[in-house]
Amino acid sequence: MDGRNSMPERSALEVKPGVEGGHDGMKVTPKKFRKKKQEQIDIQKLAGEVREGARTSLSKAITLIESSNPEHKEQAQNLLQELLPYTGNSIRIGITGVPGAGKSSFIEAFGSMLCNMGKKVAVLAIDPSSSLSGGSILGDKTRMEELSRNRNAFVRPSPSAGTLGGVHKKTRETMLICEAAGYDVILIETVGVGQSETFVRGMVDFFLLLVLTGAGDELQGMKKGIMELADGIIVHKSDGDNIPKARKTVREYMQILHFLQPATPGWMSKALPASSLEKTGLKEAWEMICQFETTIKESSYWETRRLEQTREWFQSMIVDHLIDSFFNDRDKKTQVKALENAILKGEITVTQGVLKLFS
Amino acid sequence: MDGRNSMPERSALEVKPGVEGGHDGMKVTPKKFRKKKQEQIDIQKLAGEVREGARTSLSKAITLIESSNPEHKEQAQNLLQELLPYTGNSIRIGITGVPGAGKSSFIEAFGSMLCNMGKKVAVLAIDPSSSLSGGSILGDKTRMEELSRNRNAFVRPSPSAGTLGGVHKKTRETMLICEAAGYDVILIETVGVGQSETFVRGMVDFFLLLVLTGAGDELQGMKKGIMELADGIIVHKSDGDNIPKARKTVREYMQILHFLQPATPGWMSKALPASSLEKTGLKEAWEMICQFETTIKESSYWETRRLEQTREWFQSMIVDHLIDSFFNDRDKKTQVKALENAILKGEITVTQGVLKLFS
Repeated sequence: MDGRNSMPERSALEVKPGVEGGHDGMKVTPKKFRKKKQEQIDIQKLAGEVREGARTSLSKAITLIESSNPEHKEQAQNLLQELLPYTGNSIRIGITGVPGAGKSSFIEAFGSMLCNMGKKVAVLAIDPSSSLSGGSILGDKTRMEELSRNRNAFVRPSPSAGTLGGVHKKTRETMLICEAAGYDVILIETVGVGQSETFVRGMVDFFLLLVLTGAGDELQGMKKGIMELADGIIVHKSDGDNIPKARKTVREYMQILHFLQPATPGWMSKALPASSLEKTGLKEAWEMICQFETTIKESSYWETRRLEQTREWFQSMIVDHLIDSFFNDRDKKTQVKALENAILKGEITVTQGVLKLFS
Repeated sequence: MDGRNSMPERSALEVKPGVEGGHDGMKVTPKKFRKKKQEQIDIQKLAGEVREGARTSLSKAITLIESSNPEHKEQAQNLLQELLPYTGNSIRIGITGVPGAGKSSFIEAFGSMLCNMGKKVAVLAIDPSSSLSGGSILGDKTRMEELSRNRNAFVRPSPSAGTLGGVHKKTRETMLICEAAGYDVILIETVGVGQSETFVRGMVDFFLLLVLTGAGDELQGMKKGIMELADGIIVHKSDGDNIPKARKTVREYMQILHFLQPATPGWMSKALPASSLEKTGLKEAWEMICQFETTIKESSYWETRRLEQTREWFQSMIVDHLIDSFFNDRDKKTQVKALENAILKGEITVTQGVLKLFS
């Protein structure tokens, strides 16, 4: 039971993947029956169970939040509104890493340490491009086995590739649900390529970057601008013979960080060595984060940033809605394509294209 | 005459700043008379004059492009369409620099060298935040005096702070006009703060960053991510006693560039020393740009990037239009503000806010 309670329990909601994805050609359950089942969700009761820390209820709540079924959407928002007053009390940590940096093993070791310190730790994943990165599917079942079994931990696997679109937009809401469920530390892992780091940076208090030894080689494969988002850098796999090399790499990163503007005003980003294998440097990483929390709460930027993040989230959702509803309009799409072709052929100017589109 | 032919000749179009800015409280010319004057612009004739290289006509054409008068807008687009077939034959170079790097003196020395090599050089400026950066106003009249007097050069001063909104959106079109007028090299200078570098990177082939000696100190004040946009870095003021220090800085930048992904696929960004005072390194800078042109044209990425830039320009203008017309709607603005307050107070969820806004 323990090892599984973090899996999305879709059955509890009678939501079939096919229904969620909008392809209902496969449904066998009569519509009436399904509807009746859905109506049985008692939002008040579910909210109460979530707050009491019932893990199956938490899984159920998150599945409801992630569902794209229109009826679920309304229920999800009602649930979220019930829980809103109990949110905001965690420390939100974003974790990213260069390929091969050992993100999962770090989260497992780091999260287990926090759990053993008595913290309740939730692990979420954001993967805006899940359909492109097949790697995470394979890993879902086996990764973070130790942490998943810890009673203080809740590990939400990243959504399987291709089955759910736009789930990343729900990570913020999932985070709020976890906070209402009493989780003290939320670890949000970036998965996949693209803009995931920027998404995560926009919803966390502290952003941690995992790298390997040999800054030069690493940095070449590193995504543009990623170092400038980090409040802390962990030089991972600093164990055995690798320790002297890791120390050198820490110094190199400290030097580069010195060149960059701080990711958080009032905080000088730091680099530290750590090993998940030898369980070293994990305590120091947590101390760095605690020091960050104290410093930034003192400067009152902590709350300012969170309000700003919520405001930006609202603005970006408005803009997303405007753009989606425009570009998803089939007529507009055809018109844009035709005008784009005319522009690329040099037949009309870009401004003329825009004027024609909105005339 | 020579020193002034690059100034915007607004009088030729009878456009008063007040009219351009949309504040028509000051207009004294009777409307009928103004209208008659405007209709006198013979677009075909103006296009012909621009193509023949008449500088007053070029200034007149740019002023027409920059005008926000609705009638001018249509004429401007007709003019641009006339000239479109003759555009695209220049090399487009963006130039930015850390504060104090001596951008103007570099452009003056570099541009003059190119003119003396027989190239026709146009200098444009982009300043998306002109109302914030008062510095450029003072400099407009005196800067680049030598280059302005060169018969192969066309120096367009940056728009005065505060008088014209959104002129930066016209820099691309101004660039096209200059190309039709036969300019071989377009230098686009970033002015002011904010997003100007990203704007410029999105419209040029080669992006040049000017820095001073002492990479460490410099980088601290450097805008985030700016080095990653650069195809080349010039360590400026490499003259006199400063030469050894400049050489060291070049090595430091080369090392940092080695860590970063190339700004242009297939090109390894380089750092070079140069002095506008002693006129050294300018030839080498030009050779680097020519080498870049050869390399990137061979890989066919040259044309790919330009088409991609045009496509992105069209897309971004569509998105701008969608966002502007939404957020400029007074009712919507009030509604957004009220919902935002409810969200920040924790009364409703962000998703509920968006649903309410579009219901």
